[in-house]
Parts: sequence; C-alpha cells; structure tokens
Amino acid sequence: MTEPHKGGRPRSDATRHAILSAAYDELQAVGFRAIAMERIARRAGSSKTTLYRWWPSKAAILLEAVNERSDRYPGFDDTGDVYVDLLEEIRGVIKFYLSDSGAAMLDLVAESRFDPDLASAIRDDFIAHRRAATRVTWKRGVARGQIRADVDVEVVMDALWGSLYYKLLVSHNPPDMGFADQLMNTFWPAITG
Amino acid sequence: MTEPHKGGRPRSDATRHAILSAAYDELQAVGFRAIAMERIARRAGSSKTTLYRWWPSKAAILLEAVNERSDRYPGFDDTGDVYVDLLEEIRGVIKFYLSDSGAAMLDLVAESRFDPDLASAIRDDFIAHRRAATRVTWKRGVARGQIRADVDVEVVMDALWGSLYYKLLVSHNPPDMGFADQLMNTFWPAITG
Repeated sequence: MTEPHKGGRPRSDATRHAILSAAYDELQAVGFRAIAMERIARRAGSSKTTLYRWWPSKAAILLEAVNERSDRYPGFDDTGDVYVDLLEEIRGVIKFYLSDSGAAMLDLVAESRFDPDLASAIRDDFIAHRRAATRVTWKRGVARGQIRADVDVEVVMDALWGSLYYKLLVSHNPPDMGFADQLMNTFWPAITG
Repeated sequence: MTEPHKGGRPRSDATRHAILSAAYDELQAVGFRAIAMERIARRAGSSKTTLYRWWPSKAAILLEAVNERSDRYPGFDDTGDVYVDLLEEIRGVIKFYLSDSGAAMLDLVAESRFDPDLASAIRDDFIAHRRAATRVTWKRGVARGQIRADVDVEVVMDALWGSLYYKLLVSHNPPDMGFADQLMNTFWPAITG
C-alpha cells in the first residue's frame, strides 16, 4: 500500500506523511463518514487536487493512513514451527485490534458496510494481503508435514480470522490473549497431519 | 424480544406492529444513524412518548423491527442428527443474510460499532439468544455421542458464526450455500467424537 498511486507523480514522502497523519487525526476527530477531503488537505497544508492525484478515494487515504501507523497489523514470523507461527500471529492480531490503530481499523471495517469504495479497498488492499501472508505460512506447514494437505485453508482463514472480527464487531465480547490459545487448541486437531 | 418493555403498559398489538413497520421502513429509507424517533412516531401515527414508553432506545426498536420480519433469522431443527441440524442452521443463516431483512440486520451490526445502545441490544437481545439456541443443539450432540464432550462450544460458535460475518462484513466475499458444506467438512472432524 506504499507504492505511488498509478498514474500519479511520485509522491513526496514528507507531503505523503503529512496527509496520512492529517487523515488519521480527522478519523479520530469526526469519524469516517463526516470526513471531508478538503479538511484533510487543509490540515496537511496540501490541496484536494494533490489528494485526488495520489489516492483514488477518501476510503483509500484512510485505509492507508491506518495501515501506516507504527502499531500496525502484524506479519508472520517463521520460527520453524507453524503452530507457534499461527498462534503468535493470532495473538498479534488481537493485540493490534485492542490498540488505537486497531480501533480505527475496526471503524473502517464497520463503515465499509455503507461505502463501496471502502469495501473494495479493504477487500483488495487489506484482506487480500493478510490472506496471502497466511497462505505462505500455511504452505510451510503443509511442506513440513505439520498441516494436512487436504484441509481448505480458505475456510480455515474465514473461521480463524472471522472469530476475532465476530467478537469485536458482532457479539461485542472482545477477545483477550487467551482466546488465541483457545482457538488453536480447538482447531489445530482439525488441520494437523 | 416480543415481551412488553418492563415498566411499560401492555402494548397494543396493532400499534406495536405499526411502529415496528414504520421503524423498518425508516431504516431502509435513511439508515440507522439518520433515523429520528419523531419520524418513526409520525409514520406510525403514534407519538415519541409512546415509543419511549415501550422501548428503551432507538436501537431497541430497530433491532426488534428487523427481528419481527417474516423472513427472520432461522431456528434449529431437531432431526435426530446434529450434523444435519448444524448444517441446515448454517444454510438458514446464510439464506437469511442474503435476504432484505438480513441486509437490514447487517446494517445494524455495522452501526453497532458506533452506538453503544445498539451494541448492547445486539449482544444481549440477539447474539445471546442465538448462542443459547446453538448450545441446546450442541448438548443434544454431546448426549448422543456425536460431539466430543471436551470441545469448547463457545469457541466453535465464535468461529462458525464468525466466518459468516467475516465474509459478509469484512472480506466482502459473501458466502453461498455451498459454504455451509465447506465449513462443516472442515470443522466437523475437530468436534465429532
């Protein structure tokens, strides 16, 4: 998500950071729906024209703003043990969603129900990358004989990641760190070889 | 959710239906956030005072309005085979969420991120009942030896139901009926005895 927007000129890093930082502040201040591109531009000392040259939509700016935070969504480790890698990733995702940046990301997910640009951006620029990273770890597990080759990783991802979003956004019963262990204890037997 | 609101007078059924129907129409017309109690009351030929006598909040009215629709969230069957009961329930929930009432329910779930009354109502008046119904079926499965007694039904529910909400609200890749079979094929081995 850090490449220049296609067709635009290369972005100045300082301006880009000022815009993303202004966008994040606006999200915290007024919420996604009320954000005006004009106000992000003014807060960043930039212009609406610049914003639209570099990003296709308000949704794209906000998603990038949240994903550029220092406490961003974690990546997988390769410890040599895929059980540990999955467990630690689930823990990292729980920790992320209990942080301020995670809360902002959950705001965007909720708002994506009402904004098709935001829904596309989350699907294509966030979820697709997270799932691709999970598949890499999964394939290591299959290659090492830790995971059965006939298990549908797509469904497992829907259920594992889905359980976290369900607790955060639907049942309003946020997961604690122990939930990562409960998940792995319950479902590892279904996937291990 | 059909009992009279505690402390209020018994509700006239005709007035109640008029109010719930007006509330549902307003939800479709302007969305939860923009709904004014005054407009629901006017559309129903009632008064704001009546609305607040019978429901504690706008959130409570809207949740009841959606859950009173004829194509509402399904209940479990008892076919004698818990695998079939779970599979059919998952299919029913998918079908519900692809209906108009299901879409309205998803709107409320998304909005609950931004409205504490709605979050409490969904947790306590919707999710709690759905999970209680799942536990009844689950216990039948354990009693009949179809489900292992040591599997954590709470975690399984988070993952099974969570996968559906994830696909509908997060990854924006809505489930089709075949997803019910994929889910059960993947996770039944982890829970069956």
